[in-house]
Amino acid sequence: MLTKQLAFGDIETAAQRLAGIAHHTPVLHSSTLDARANATLFLKCENLQRIGAFKFRGAYNFLASLPEGVRARGVVAFSSGNHAQGVALAARLFGVPATIVMPTDAPVLKLEATLGYGAEVVPYERATSHREEIAANLAAERGATLVPPFDDERIAAGAGTAALELLEAIDGLDAIVVPVGGGGLMSGTAIAAHGIDSKIAIYGVEPSAGDDFAQSLRAGRRVTIPVPKTIADGLQTTAPGELTFAIAREHVGGIVTVSDDELCDAMRFAFERMKIVIEPSGAAPLAALLQHRIPMLQGKRVGVIVSGGNIDPARYGELITSRSTV
Amino acid sequence: MLTKQLAFGDIETAAQRLAGIAHHTPVLHSSTLDARANATLFLKCENLQRIGAFKFRGAYNFLASLPEGVRARGVVAFSSGNHAQGVALAARLFGVPATIVMPTDAPVLKLEATLGYGAEVVPYERATSHREEIAANLAAERGATLVPPFDDERIAAGAGTAALELLEAIDGLDAIVVPVGGGGLMSGTAIAAHGIDSKIAIYGVEPSAGDDFAQSLRAGRRVTIPVPKTIADGLQTTAPGELTFAIAREHVGGIVTVSDDELCDAMRFAFERMKIVIEPSGAAPLAALLQHRIPMLQGKRVGVIVSGGNIDPARYGELITSRSTV
Repeated sequence: MLTKQLAFGDIETAAQRLAGIAHHTPVLHSSTLDARANATLFLKCENLQRIGAFKFRGAYNFLASLPEGVRARGVVAFSSGNHAQGVALAARLFGVPATIVMPTDAPVLKLEATLGYGAEVVPYERATSHREEIAANLAAERGATLVPPFDDERIAAGAGTAALELLEAIDGLDAIVVPVGGGGLMSGTAIAAHGIDSKIAIYGVEPSAGDDFAQSLRAGRRVTIPVPKTIADGLQTTAPGELTFAIAREHVGGIVTVSDDELCDAMRFAFERMKIVIEPSGAAPLAALLQHRIPMLQGKRVGVIVSGGNIDPARYGELITSRSTV
Repeated sequence: MLTKQLAFGDIETAAQRLAGIAHHTPVLHSSTLDARANATLFLKCENLQRIGAFKFRGAYNFLASLPEGVRARGVVAFSSGNHAQGVALAARLFGVPATIVMPTDAPVLKLEATLGYGAEVVPYERATSHREEIAANLAAERGATLVPPFDDERIAAGAGTAALELLEAIDGLDAIVVPVGGGGLMSGTAIAAHGIDSKIAIYGVEPSAGDDFAQSLRAGRRVTIPVPKTIADGLQTTAPGELTFAIAREHVGGIVTVSDDELCDAMRFAFERMKIVIEPSGAAPLAALLQHRIPMLQGKRVGVIVSGGNIDPARYGELITSRSTV
């Protein structure tokens, strides 16, 4: 039985907590993009959020919801990057210690930013170690609270506030498309959107190398896959969350996949025509829309959550100049 | 005697013409940037404008101000890139032909975009040919109107609408800092700002290799320099305009210069911490502020016009990964 729940009111509460703390990120539009995608797209630019990704919203909402005495003992998280930065900045804003368990292959920019926000970083080998275990042990040792990356109603509620802002800014959206890792952003977006208008279709986009969520929805149960090999380092989850899967089954219209080449193509488009930096994970919805991967969105008004922009400069230069095979 | 004039009312008129046509670009803020610059900065992101630069505003305002019969015979412009794209898109929106005289070394992205907006492109050798002459001859042959790049009250008025929007969005600015090529953006910004509050200080930033405007202000007359060698391809002007120089003498607090290395440093900062793509020319004010080049702005509230983001992917990758000597 599912004990965790997420309601529209949780997202409204998160929005109140984040007011004046998180950036109210801009919504961008491009005629050239619309022509290519054959739809009217509105990009909610969470790459322009504090820490360069939507993850700040959930992390801050989580910390804000902890009792003061608990929060004061500090927080621990495991993350390849954006959640790490989100927790590190939220902890700094509350003046409490943060310890982040990060894979040794995390992007240097994400690692440096996490250290820059004053967090302690504990490295682990992605292929061999159990990061959940390392993080849980650290939390127990220090009396600190573990901040889960996505399968938590406070994290998902924070993530959902981006969609809330998008829907306040843009009328008459037919759908919202989001990238899918563990499903926290997708769940929060779905609950936010359907709290306002149950007819708004929610679509998720996964890297084709890591389609655990699509497989799970087809199977009707949570499927676990090996760590996927993809340039989308933020979407290398191996299974949907319990809460996020339950919400997706009820609220999500479909999940499509995109290749790494298609992600590069979308990143390059965003660079050339929109002048915004999107990391591979954050480019997944744009990639799907440029490829017309969701046919029912043709001609529609579509919100797009651009989830993040954290990528090393050299890597970015490589990816936006790579020869497209799309 | 100066026959051309620019008044605050011209900027208001331009803003009315641009309403619903130009993007109302976002104003971004970054705590990390403020800490580095020791000031509170508000970035008016004209790199997120249509065609990726503020130049669309002036070009559209110019075309809008032409009598319909004149406009119908088409327009001609000479430009290394952003003005070209601005004129090309404005002409397409009005359904009139555009011919653009572009240097053979113009960034490929700018060239392709100009062609993409349906303009005819006539190439010239930057070092040897007289582009003004080529363009003037073309205009005469075709009965078309030459759209000047900056030394024109309609162009400068359009450019000034960006500052108007910035001042509507942000209260209590002490100063606005802009990049300086021919001075169209600086003039428009100054007239817009001082039409609202004469105490707002206006500063310009030039590449150190091409400080014709700073030299001219010191000399008290318009000084002409050889074509400057700088990565800031949008600021390779050789002399201030007549109108823009006159406005600068009356309204501008000072002009400072930045090196190409400092431009790269600012572009990399914008990439890493703000997730926006800025071309070298557009990064000039940010570079000056990161270097504390304008001491009187320390601790102040400062508007920054980020003028454009058009740069080839390979070139961008090079510049944001170049080893800083700053």
